[in-house]
Amino acid sequence: MVDELTVINMFLEVLGQPRRLFSYIGDDVAWTRKAVKRDKFVIKVDMLVGKTDVPRGMTLRQAARKSVVACVSDFACKGVKPWGALVSLGLPKGFNEEQVLEIVNGFKDARNEFDIEIVGGDTNEASDLIIDCIMFGWGKNVIRRDGADADEYVLVTGDFGLPPLGLDILSGKKKIRSPRLVEKALESVLYPKPRLNFGLVACNRKLVTASIDSSDGLVLSLYEIAQHSRVDILLYELPINENLKNYGELSEGEKREYTLYGGEEYEIVFTCKPKDAQKILEVGEETDTPIKIIGRTVDGSGKVYFKGEVLEKKGWIHFK
Amino acid sequence: MVDELTVINMFLEVLGQPRRLFSYIGDDVAWTRKAVKRDKFVIKVDMLVGKTDVPRGMTLRQAARKSVVACVSDFACKGVKPWGALVSLGLPKGFNEEQVLEIVNGFKDARNEFDIEIVGGDTNEASDLIIDCIMFGWGKNVIRRDGADADEYVLVTGDFGLPPLGLDILSGKKKIRSPRLVEKALESVLYPKPRLNFGLVACNRKLVTASIDSSDGLVLSLYEIAQHSRVDILLYELPINENLKNYGELSEGEKREYTLYGGEEYEIVFTCKPKDAQKILEVGEETDTPIKIIGRTVDGSGKVYFKGEVLEKKGWIHFK
Repeated sequence: MVDELTVINMFLEVLGQPRRLFSYIGDDVAWTRKAVKRDKFVIKVDMLVGKTDVPRGMTLRQAARKSVVACVSDFACKGVKPWGALVSLGLPKGFNEEQVLEIVNGFKDARNEFDIEIVGGDTNEASDLIIDCIMFGWGKNVIRRDGADADEYVLVTGDFGLPPLGLDILSGKKKIRSPRLVEKALESVLYPKPRLNFGLVACNRKLVTASIDSSDGLVLSLYEIAQHSRVDILLYELPINENLKNYGELSEGEKREYTLYGGEEYEIVFTCKPKDAQKILEVGEETDTPIKIIGRTVDGSGKVYFKGEVLEKKGWIHFK
Repeated sequence: MVDELTVINMFLEVLGQPRRLFSYIGDDVAWTRKAVKRDKFVIKVDMLVGKTDVPRGMTLRQAARKSVVACVSDFACKGVKPWGALVSLGLPKGFNEEQVLEIVNGFKDARNEFDIEIVGGDTNEASDLIIDCIMFGWGKNVIRRDGADADEYVLVTGDFGLPPLGLDILSGKKKIRSPRLVEKALESVLYPKPRLNFGLVACNRKLVTASIDSSDGLVLSLYEIAQHSRVDILLYELPINENLKNYGELSEGEKREYTLYGGEEYEIVFTCKPKDAQKILEVGEETDTPIKIIGRTVDGSGKVYFKGEVLEKKGWIHFK
């Protein structure tokens, strides 16, 4: 089996990094300055596959919206406003018009919610449901993964742990007695909310030094920043969701696993200079976005520590 | 079953045409002028699905190249230079590194051949092999499908009929005794050559009034121009490939079917003003591209005639 990182590395070995005017491979989005005055052109693709990315209990309308959310979240953490999207569909043979209409309405939901245009696409027959969303836009600054220095703060929007719990509830792997926790966990999976407003404002005010979205899990996101920026990250506290934290019937180990290694969150994991922390918290208030300072960067070589202990680098890598 | 046109119409019914600055849905590519001085931003996606788009006998390297060719061909007929591409892959579980490397090398072939950059992508697990190629670029003029007037010439690059015959040979549906014809037919399927140089030069000299690529079949391409431009098209002659024409063991009906309704050709079908025909032929010579005048436009309502008879509007529509 070949995982995503291996595929990326094979592309890099055979093709090298792009030669002209283009960004390096290995960030959340690709960008270029070709033919634009000051604005960088930014583009991103995210493929949703029915059998692996659409849990039981998620409607097609929610799945289509989610495929857009995955792209919007990457634009949000880079501080770039998304402008338009293409939709490339693979539809199983048995799909009927009602099902397609559900997908179309999911794109309408996303279009209205994020103020983008759906400008084109492609349709094919495939064994799985495939929803490949391509998003593009323009931005003056694209916040990279490698911009963190030592002695900066490490922050997150929102909190962690609910979406992976929600997935386990949907798949029947976990039974949870608290109706409130079930409701919150399912909502976080079925109707994820990317942090677009916060990302745009915070990045445009140049308050963010490095940034990534957390869709592959908190620890993997922290490792990406640490390794690209060549710093170590010391975590002070885990940004665990309150409802999850207070639920007595899960062990501390399970809660920690959900928080650190879950994935499917669309939060922003980022760094800022200490002098800008107050301004960041203000942007959080302006945009109704909870912000937590969870750690700091120190001189180092790309490791992530919690209470003196190196956290295992793992997360949601496709095919693993 | 839901065909591609139905899907497009559902999107148009639910979402309408894009609202701001963007091109209309229904051309080969999408474009916009956002944030660019004079250059329009142009984008296109084409999904290749292993089980339907990769015939037996085509290597993965050829398939990956073909996914880029499909996009390049659309850019060629619009007169827009492609700049970069994203690659979104769905890989079957059993795929090994050697197979992925073949795909990567196909993208390298295409990158070198068409002078583009591969700037990013996504990798997922899927039941079918999915190669979704997203291509973008910038162009001053984008030649549309709806620009033809009455009393113009209808032209094609190259000739028609070989790729569908090649597909029938690969699938075992047809046995052909002529080694030369077999070789030509297979080459046309396995190593299609889009008409990028011709398209760029002819369109940039403003010699082309309406244009489309022929990947859905000659007749369907002609109908697209006729209906979007609100003219009728009278065909004088069929641009049948010479080797196919001279092969005695296929009936005239079969040859006509291959030529008119085959698809998988990556030729340009276009119109020009009679005064520009000579210049078009010169561009053909400059760029080593055979050009044929095959008919003309007249006042009408979107029909295509050959020898006084309306040609049936059919072609390669996915899911049919």
